[in-house]
Amino acid sequence: MYKLKCVTCQKEYKVEPGRYLCDECDSIHGTLEVIYDLDKINLKKDFDPNGSLFQFDKLLPTKSHTVIDEHIGGSPLINYGNKFGYNHFMIKFDGMNMSASYKDRASIIAINKAIEEGNKHIFCASTGNAASSLALLNAHTDIETSIFVPASIPEGKLAQLLAAGANIYPIQASYDEVFDLSLSIGLKKGWYTRHSAVNPYLLEGKKTGAFEIIVQNNYIAPDYVFVGVGDGTIISALCKGFDEFYKLGLMDKLPKVIGVQAKGSSTLKKVFESGQIITENVHTIADSISVGNPRDVIKACKYLKANGGYFIEVSDDEIVEAIGLMARETGVFAEPAGAVTLAGLLKSGIDKSQSICLVVTGNGLKDTSNIKIADVKTYTKAEVKRLFEEDNS
Amino acid sequence: MYKLKCVTCQKEYKVEPGRYLCDECDSIHGTLEVIYDLDKINLKKDFDPNGSLFQFDKLLPTKSHTVIDEHIGGSPLINYGNKFGYNHFMIKFDGMNMSASYKDRASIIAINKAIEEGNKHIFCASTGNAASSLALLNAHTDIETSIFVPASIPEGKLAQLLAAGANIYPIQASYDEVFDLSLSIGLKKGWYTRHSAVNPYLLEGKKTGAFEIIVQNNYIAPDYVFVGVGDGTIISALCKGFDEFYKLGLMDKLPKVIGVQAKGSSTLKKVFESGQIITENVHTIADSISVGNPRDVIKACKYLKANGGYFIEVSDDEIVEAIGLMARETGVFAEPAGAVTLAGLLKSGIDKSQSICLVVTGNGLKDTSNIKIADVKTYTKAEVKRLFEEDNS
Repeated sequence: MYKLKCVTCQKEYKVEPGRYLCDECDSIHGTLEVIYDLDKINLKKDFDPNGSLFQFDKLLPTKSHTVIDEHIGGSPLINYGNKFGYNHFMIKFDGMNMSASYKDRASIIAINKAIEEGNKHIFCASTGNAASSLALLNAHTDIETSIFVPASIPEGKLAQLLAAGANIYPIQASYDEVFDLSLSIGLKKGWYTRHSAVNPYLLEGKKTGAFEIIVQNNYIAPDYVFVGVGDGTIISALCKGFDEFYKLGLMDKLPKVIGVQAKGSSTLKKVFESGQIITENVHTIADSISVGNPRDVIKACKYLKANGGYFIEVSDDEIVEAIGLMARETGVFAEPAGAVTLAGLLKSGIDKSQSICLVVTGNGLKDTSNIKIADVKTYTKAEVKRLFEEDNS
Repeated sequence: MYKLKCVTCQKEYKVEPGRYLCDECDSIHGTLEVIYDLDKINLKKDFDPNGSLFQFDKLLPTKSHTVIDEHIGGSPLINYGNKFGYNHFMIKFDGMNMSASYKDRASIIAINKAIEEGNKHIFCASTGNAASSLALLNAHTDIETSIFVPASIPEGKLAQLLAAGANIYPIQASYDEVFDLSLSIGLKKGWYTRHSAVNPYLLEGKKTGAFEIIVQNNYIAPDYVFVGVGDGTIISALCKGFDEFYKLGLMDKLPKVIGVQAKGSSTLKKVFESGQIITENVHTIADSISVGNPRDVIKACKYLKANGGYFIEVSDDEIVEAIGLMARETGVFAEPAGAVTLAGLLKSGIDKSQSICLVVTGNGLKDTSNIKIADVKTYTKAEVKRLFEEDNS
């Protein structure tokens, strides 16, 4: 039902275990795309707005094999009407997934592909969310999990990893270094890789967020969709998902996809705008999108150009402000990489007549280090009593 | 469609703003029940397994008035087959709600009732989850929120509260003291109360977890349902929910409901077994069920006796062990008060031929203090390389 094609040289490859990259191109240029014969796929506008991502299995590279599959995806699209003055303001809240992040959409594909291939060991490098997602979602299977993360991973994500009982290697290095090191170890060992920018199938799971936005909005495309960007896989996936649904006649137009990066980690934005591939040392409080060597750069630039979208960058201060603003106005508590979307929208200058969807990729409980817990005033019973007595007088 | 009746003296009351308790009985005995005329309600087995709790509105005391309502409830029932050797082993995972706990089911009812009554201020005392639930779910409305919590509230829950921007009063006192103090302040001010054991409508939201278990298990009742118990409202609610669905012919039998308490906080168990109402000083790591003066004691005992269920108690060590075991075997990362259910099941001696459902009421990300994060070994890049080279030799 699908084939693999190099994103740069267009060479086609058979679907087979261990086939992740193009043989002719380097690892950055040689990522593979999963191409479906859309002419042979007939879909109706009858998807379940609350259903799992496997309802889109005609556009997925794997069938469902595990008992948790039917509970992955289907996160809410909350429509806040004209909040912030826009025509429609919506949040796709993927902090309500099983491991509390968008990454569950890719992990569940990796687990099911590993089952189909008979591989008994999955591994990944991750800033945190992909790791805790893989460790938790894979915990109930008999497949072993090995996780490589920067030692600076936020506490909430580390707690999830420890509870899940995976093999964990926190390394005193940047995400970019952890990525390279882990990939060389795991591929040599023949483990199944859950590195989104290497394994072409993971993007297929991530594109289901785009499908759900359309289904949950009654098959009407928002004008703009905002998402935080690190490696570039989720933004590629959203663009591909919208494109496939558009080509299948399930929506009337393509939404413009806006990638939001942190100022201290905006490598992909620079590459997109200059056409020059660079790598940088980066730093931002939004750990999930702290990436100076974005691995999915070729797809991200290609798909975003085709979509007509672009990048915006915001400061760490603006991100922290946006966490509180989003929670106070919508009740959605986002991790920094999720709140960047609101910071980006507020800077975008997009006309208020437009309809907006923010993709919040992770729950605020994942990383509470930017919430000033230590500054909270506490009271004695007597103080509280006095406070409200005075208030009455 | 419903009336209010005192759980002890049976006196009936009109539904009107400010009516929370019986005038004839004290505050412990005089909690009110919401009684529907079940003879006039006709429900079919056609509910949406993934739908929100408002699909049960014929058995709820309020209609839906806010844009988030359609996303509250509908948490997954994950069926792990014969995991742990049982005939069926299932987890109802309410850590996937909007604020990551079961409390969303009650908060959304309070918010909608306050809207119906035109009250512009809601308040609650809480060990943490009810507070963060109310603050986040109410954030998008124009109703003010005031929150009273023990100053010892776990960090994750406090972070949610701070982000949501509610009026927060962390008090250097036990939950039981905070409850009394806040109630006297808020009721005097005429605020709408989100205290589950005072406001009779909140239990109605909490009973929807029982409805969903039945709908999601194809209208077949599990043999046993386990839930952590503090104040006693959720266990009352589960019993009432199962009872209503049974009387309406939507299931073939009643599941036995098992309440699990921490050894250091098992006041309700003692009351249930002795028939004597007592209060105690309590301590457990499971903050959500650390309650020495359980306010819903009369309903909890009445409903649980009618159900045929009983209480089990487990140690804090067993709870910590169960957090890890549950995550490793199922991928569900639970807060301590959610993991007590697995600890209780393992102690229960229930025959393996039975079908089991654990109700996990809160996400593990809410309170990571029992996960030994500080003990985690970190590696240099060279150490990791060496580790896997040696492993190959």
